[in-house]
Amino acid sequence: MAVYARRESQVRSYCRSFPVEFTKGRNATLTDRAGREYIDFLAGCSSLNYGHNDPDMKAALIDHITGDGIAHGLDMHTDAKTAFLETFERVILRPRGMEHKVMMTGPTGTNAVEAAMKLARKVTGRDTIVAFTNGFHGMTMGALAATGNAGKRAGGGMALHGVVRMPYEGAMDGVDSLAMIEAMLDNPSSGFDAPAAFLIEPVQGEGGLNAASADFLRGLKRLAEKHGALLIADDIQSGIGRTGPFFSFEGMDVMPDLIPLAKSLSGMGLPFAALLVRPDLDVWKPAEHNGTFRGNQHAFVTARVALEKFWTDDTFQKQTEAKAEFLERRLSDIAALIPGARLKGRGMMRGVDVGSGETAGAICAACFEHGLVIETSGAHDEVVKVLAPLTIPEAQLAQGLDIIEAAVRSRIAGTTPIAAE
Amino acid sequence: MAVYARRESQVRSYCRSFPVEFTKGRNATLTDRAGREYIDFLAGCSSLNYGHNDPDMKAALIDHITGDGIAHGLDMHTDAKTAFLETFERVILRPRGMEHKVMMTGPTGTNAVEAAMKLARKVTGRDTIVAFTNGFHGMTMGALAATGNAGKRAGGGMALHGVVRMPYEGAMDGVDSLAMIEAMLDNPSSGFDAPAAFLIEPVQGEGGLNAASADFLRGLKRLAEKHGALLIADDIQSGIGRTGPFFSFEGMDVMPDLIPLAKSLSGMGLPFAALLVRPDLDVWKPAEHNGTFRGNQHAFVTARVALEKFWTDDTFQKQTEAKAEFLERRLSDIAALIPGARLKGRGMMRGVDVGSGETAGAICAACFEHGLVIETSGAHDEVVKVLAPLTIPEAQLAQGLDIIEAAVRSRIAGTTPIAAE
Amino acid sequence: MAVYARRESQVRSYCRSFPVEFTKGRNATLTDRAGREYIDFLAGCSSLNYGHNDPDMKAALIDHITGDGIAHGLDMHTDAKTAFLETFERVILRPRGMEHKVMMTGPTGTNAVEAAMKLARKVTGRDTIVAFTNGFHGMTMGALAATGNAGKRAGGGMALHGVVRMPYEGAMDGVDSLAMIEAMLDNPSSGFDAPAAFLIEPVQGEGGLNAASADFLRGLKRLAEKHGALLIADDIQSGIGRTGPFFSFEGMDVMPDLIPLAKSLSGMGLPFAALLVRPDLDVWKPAEHNGTFRGNQHAFVTARVALEKFWTDDTFQKQTEAKAEFLERRLSDIAALIPGARLKGRGMMRGVDVGSGETAGAICAACFEHGLVIETSGAHDEVVKVLAPLTIPEAQLAQGLDIIEAAVRSRIAGTTPIAAE
Amino acid sequence: MAVYARRESQVRSYCRSFPVEFTKGRNATLTDRAGREYIDFLAGCSSLNYGHNDPDMKAALIDHITGDGIAHGLDMHTDAKTAFLETFERVILRPRGMEHKVMMTGPTGTNAVEAAMKLARKVTGRDTIVAFTNGFHGMTMGALAATGNAGKRAGGGMALHGVVRMPYEGAMDGVDSLAMIEAMLDNPSSGFDAPAAFLIEPVQGEGGLNAASADFLRGLKRLAEKHGALLIADDIQSGIGRTGPFFSFEGMDVMPDLIPLAKSLSGMGLPFAALLVRPDLDVWKPAEHNGTFRGNQHAFVTARVALEKFWTDDTFQKQTEAKAEFLERRLSDIAALIPGARLKGRGMMRGVDVGSGETAGAICAACFEHGLVIETSGAHDEVVKVLAPLTIPEAQLAQGLDIIEAAVRSRIAGTTPIAAE
Repeated sequence: MAVYARRESQVRSYCRSFPVEFTKGRNATLTDRAGREYIDFLAGCSSLNYGHNDPDMKAALIDHITGDGIAHGLDMHTDAKTAFLETFERVILRPRGMEHKVMMTGPTGTNAVEAAMKLARKVTGRDTIVAFTNGFHGMTMGALAATGNAGKRAGGGMALHGVVRMPYEGAMDGVDSLAMIEAMLDNPSSGFDAPAAFLIEPVQGEGGLNAASADFLRGLKRLAEKHGALLIADDIQSGIGRTGPFFSFEGMDVMPDLIPLAKSLSGMGLPFAALLVRPDLDVWKPAEHNGTFRGNQHAFVTARVALEKFWTDDTFQKQTEAKAEFLERRLSDIAALIPGARLKGRGMMRGVDVGSGETAGAICAACFEHGLVIETSGAHDEVVKVLAPLTIPEAQLAQGLDIIEAAVRSRIAGTTPIAAE
Repeated sequence: MAVYARRESQVRSYCRSFPVEFTKGRNATLTDRAGREYIDFLAGCSSLNYGHNDPDMKAALIDHITGDGIAHGLDMHTDAKTAFLETFERVILRPRGMEHKVMMTGPTGTNAVEAAMKLARKVTGRDTIVAFTNGFHGMTMGALAATGNAGKRAGGGMALHGVVRMPYEGAMDGVDSLAMIEAMLDNPSSGFDAPAAFLIEPVQGEGGLNAASADFLRGLKRLAEKHGALLIADDIQSGIGRTGPFFSFEGMDVMPDLIPLAKSLSGMGLPFAALLVRPDLDVWKPAEHNGTFRGNQHAFVTARVALEKFWTDDTFQKQTEAKAEFLERRLSDIAALIPGARLKGRGMMRGVDVGSGETAGAICAACFEHGLVIETSGAHDEVVKVLAPLTIPEAQLAQGLDIIEAAVRSRIAGTTPIAAE
Repeated sequence: MAVYARRESQVRSYCRSFPVEFTKGRNATLTDRAGREYIDFLAGCSSLNYGHNDPDMKAALIDHITGDGIAHGLDMHTDAKTAFLETFERVILRPRGMEHKVMMTGPTGTNAVEAAMKLARKVTGRDTIVAFTNGFHGMTMGALAATGNAGKRAGGGMALHGVVRMPYEGAMDGVDSLAMIEAMLDNPSSGFDAPAAFLIEPVQGEGGLNAASADFLRGLKRLAEKHGALLIADDIQSGIGRTGPFFSFEGMDVMPDLIPLAKSLSGMGLPFAALLVRPDLDVWKPAEHNGTFRGNQHAFVTARVALEKFWTDDTFQKQTEAKAEFLERRLSDIAALIPGARLKGRGMMRGVDVGSGETAGAICAACFEHGLVIETSGAHDEVVKVLAPLTIPEAQLAQGLDIIEAAVRSRIAGTTPIAAE
Repeated sequence: MAVYARRESQVRSYCRSFPVEFTKGRNATLTDRAGREYIDFLAGCSSLNYGHNDPDMKAALIDHITGDGIAHGLDMHTDAKTAFLETFERVILRPRGMEHKVMMTGPTGTNAVEAAMKLARKVTGRDTIVAFTNGFHGMTMGALAATGNAGKRAGGGMALHGVVRMPYEGAMDGVDSLAMIEAMLDNPSSGFDAPAAFLIEPVQGEGGLNAASADFLRGLKRLAEKHGALLIADDIQSGIGRTGPFFSFEGMDVMPDLIPLAKSLSGMGLPFAALLVRPDLDVWKPAEHNGTFRGNQHAFVTARVALEKFWTDDTFQKQTEAKAEFLERRLSDIAALIPGARLKGRGMMRGVDVGSGETAGAICAACFEHGLVIETSGAHDEVVKVLAPLTIPEAQLAQGLDIIEAAVRSRIAGTTPIAAE
């Protein structure tokens, strides 16, 4: 693997935590060149909610390729695209009463977020998007402005424009974020002008698995309506079943105006993204936002299979919720081992804030030594984050958690409590 | 196909010109649901330089999928990635004496451009990127600032920052663009501060197939060096063999500092992009620019096959150059049919400026009626653009050109010359 | 006065509240063309702290003009400038232990603020200035970005850059602004990057006479030092004796790094401004910030007289403080007449929040009918603001307050309490 | 004068070229503390077009002050303001058929420019102002963006927004600036969007005394009308008689939409500025752009005297034109002494480009030794600039020119020609 040091940019990152060469993946199991197997609690940062290489998706994709199905079709009509759109409408949109249009953006989350930000500004004629502390929305200049991480922001090399930052629910002790936003918007001399949109992750993936309440999301929607702004729910990491239902905001009695989706949307981890748009906001002119790879044809094939396999009834959601309960119980127990630690997140998007990045990093490193791929999250990398495939067998989920627990026990034996670090 | 009107965003575009449903592609031939065949002179806007569904790429990809090869691996090491990097180094970089590092960006051209712009700003500590009239670099906010098209820029919904615009070579009658840029940079009161970089397409794809000369590119490189700036050659549409050699600037005695690649890089039209970085400029910190889909694993497989199949010797380049000569001859003849028309472009990136968007649109529509998929280009859509697969059989290339010629002849019969339109 | 409607821009404002033509001013008394006299509780928005036409300043200025003293000297050395600088150093800076340099900016407050913002950015290499809700700092694009008022901001016609807004002390119920700022700065993923400076009015003049505590200002200074930022105290309206001492922050154990001064600095209401700069921050190159009218020569003459007359001992400050006590007592009594009303401000920068702009406007209009020039302040113009000359005779101060009280009594007779408006 | 080193900011500039302390000024003569007299060829950078301390202005101002006339009146109606407006309308606007409204901005040129830029953006709903190479418009952030000088721009400490730069007429050899601007505006993919306004100095004061032709200004006006933009003529340095007529663009058959005025507007060098606004563009809301010192009352008095004394017939303009002819002849002769040198400017705004800043600086320094106050101009400070009061006696003008000629002769004796420097 010397070629990586020789020829890949220093910007590479995950490979530094997991310095092996992976060769195979099947559901929650990764295999490296030496044949060693790993449990995958990272799942492509939630891009592999259905695990690696689902056999039905594989079969459909191989069939498509074998038959010279279109691999690249710009945004032209194809049979694969037709089938995906019809399935998405039938299985996802209609049952949830959603009138949203589907905008095929470039196949990355950041592109879907950029499209949402552009559309919100275009529709409202306003510049400012309100984003939240610890938010993560992407690396291109529009989305990067909405991303909180100082290091990543600095990578932009110039000032980032068009975003005002507010505390996420619960981010500041003693500050009722919603009340503060409302007070500032109601004060015509606050210097905080009415925004084009609120852009929020219902559960913050990179920012430490902070989960917004239904009250908070509904409150934002109310403020958005009051001030002529839009609500953008970035469900890129939290959506596609990660918290149980298809969208993370289901059951909260709130309907976002724009919904960027990516990561697990293709089902198989292929690059694919889309923006759901409230139909009256779909004021784009043809090609006003375009891109070569919008509408990945291979992803249409696998995404359709995923929708048909997992979302035509509530079986999968219930299975996820059952696993989430188990995960919550186990992680609570693990958190209890560490003085000051606390459980974070929601559904199968869970982690433990262990108090410092140093501790969390040490725990993850120890896990990897024992065959578990797992990463940290949070402003200080202080959260040990579990993003297992939703399809992981229960026994393997338990096995992975055992590895975490052992790593924690080993770490805390002989260490001082968090408060003293 | 009613689902498109019902559920796809108004932003869709190419499908409006070609209102059929494609189901198969093989080299330069597309097939629609009704079984009708089309010659493809659009080739995914140069994303399919090797045609649709190359059999060797297909086989390798099916093999990879069948064997549970990694489909999504973030930026971790995988066998597919190792093989791609080693092959790219061996077949492309080393023979051309290029020390560049490969940065895996998100799998779209705009992401590679954004990474280049960010890096240029980070390295130089300057904000401004010089871009050129009629340039097209992408739709996310950083790249959009560098894109010339007013309609697309307006889609951003807010002011775009960090870009100064200069005339592309030959864009303004009587203006020596290089001399003007130099004079402005030499004048400390010009208000045109030394930039972070010059960002240029060696041949402008969307902007009307304008081709920069070696003198112009070398001149920019000289100015870049004189003023501590970088030269970014956006070879997304013009690279990967489109003009003959792998890079469009080969043989011009100029080496860009940063080179965004995308479109045909995967070989098979899969979403894939990379940024080549002069090694001393690779000052990124780990993860400073990241993204879920950087390094598309399936694309690693097909891209490697493409490199091995087409670039280990100069056979393919010579074939392309031969076809380009034929294309130039035929298009010159066609241009001669239209008063005032002129040939544009270079290599297999060629077109005819027919004087107006109305004429060009009518010609392309007539072509499609006769089974040819072809599009316009240029600020006023005034160029009929030929972007056939480089692998197109000569007979089929001739057949497509016959269709164009017939459409032109039919159009000009009974119309007044261009000047009077 | 028909010429105003015919030829002056619609942007004119104060003349709309006081539709008479003033011809003379002497201390706190204005006279109109008809010979009617008015008590001046506006005092040029605190530009006339020493009243109109102080006889000693008049005499010195007439003497200067008569003797062909320099009226305009760019920033060249003149006897008037030398005398001013020496006096300012001797009377103001040295006794307060201030090492600050004096930067002669353009003769307006906004220019002094712009100079401070530019210098803070230049020194720190950072873009962002933290400004506060309800702040007012000027109308040119740099200062306007820091001004809170939405209407004035909209007048800029484009997005305003480089400012992040935080709640002023006490602006948001239940929000400890200082704690929130600190928490956001301590969180590397907050999206709130370390700023170049905090820009604050110790007492907000236009924003509703909100007064920051010593704890708050000291806290900002501590945060500034902790994060490598500067503290800019905009003492344009609150300085030059308005709150008692020369600077509004005296006695608070906090020393700002940059202090914009204007308004009453000339003593006689002539255009004059300066920026005080901590000497190690005086990194300007010669002429890096320049301007034709920086250093108004006539103002040097009158400002020197003012310093010598009022600030060589503490007599004037004590007189001001005595008047401020009287003012506070009287305004408290007046506030008590209005259900829900409350006293605002500090020193001789006082007012009553009467609950609505409608009420405050009606009170001020009634006052003017009875010969008192007085204006409102606050985000909703809800504060009746008293900015009498500090030199006003006590009897006249009482007389003006009697007019306010009468207006309030007349207003509330027959009206419902505030809460019901 | 030790206080300057001790207490004035390093930013001070002119005093470095003229290290004496001036005490008196009368018409074109300055006197220093030691009683030495100087001829003033700088005239407050054109702020003293009527010389120092005009006796009629002095008398009127002393009379005003003696009678307790209003010194500071915000933007309230006063007798001095009424008289100024009526006189300005009668003497300047009506005879020239100008319907413009007068907007009282803060009393500096930069403030008048900022008001113009804001209004142009507000009226058109567009961000971009086109400014020109070597332009100088002020130091506050809005105007600074339009200023060309790199050093001054860098003083802003952050990116400057909202301005696109084009070559001034003749700035680039072989480039027809007007044709290029038109071509770029006509190209919808040029990336040069239709601007809010063109902002131009008819004669560039700081930028090297470049004078635009009537054709160029009319061409800009035509382009402005074609593209819905405004023409802003910054006549701050070139207006108020400096080129002969009151406005520098008189006799050119072009009427700007917005005209910032300052410098000599007060007549006596007092801080005073105004923006003339085509009446249908006067869409400001009351106080939308405000400021404490807009409408300097003392300046109203002296400005009115100046208008009545110099502009009620064409005597003064003809005298200026006669002096300008003499100046042109003498400077042409001087230029002929220096190989490669050339005459710059128009009217009484004239200079000689001597080929380098070093030469120009040396000439000016030698002049000062012989009692002439004179400065350089231009991107490289390469122009020796004559800005004598228009009221200078002819003999004194000749005397000053003799000093320049002697300095030039002394400089070139023993030096090599320009080309070799």
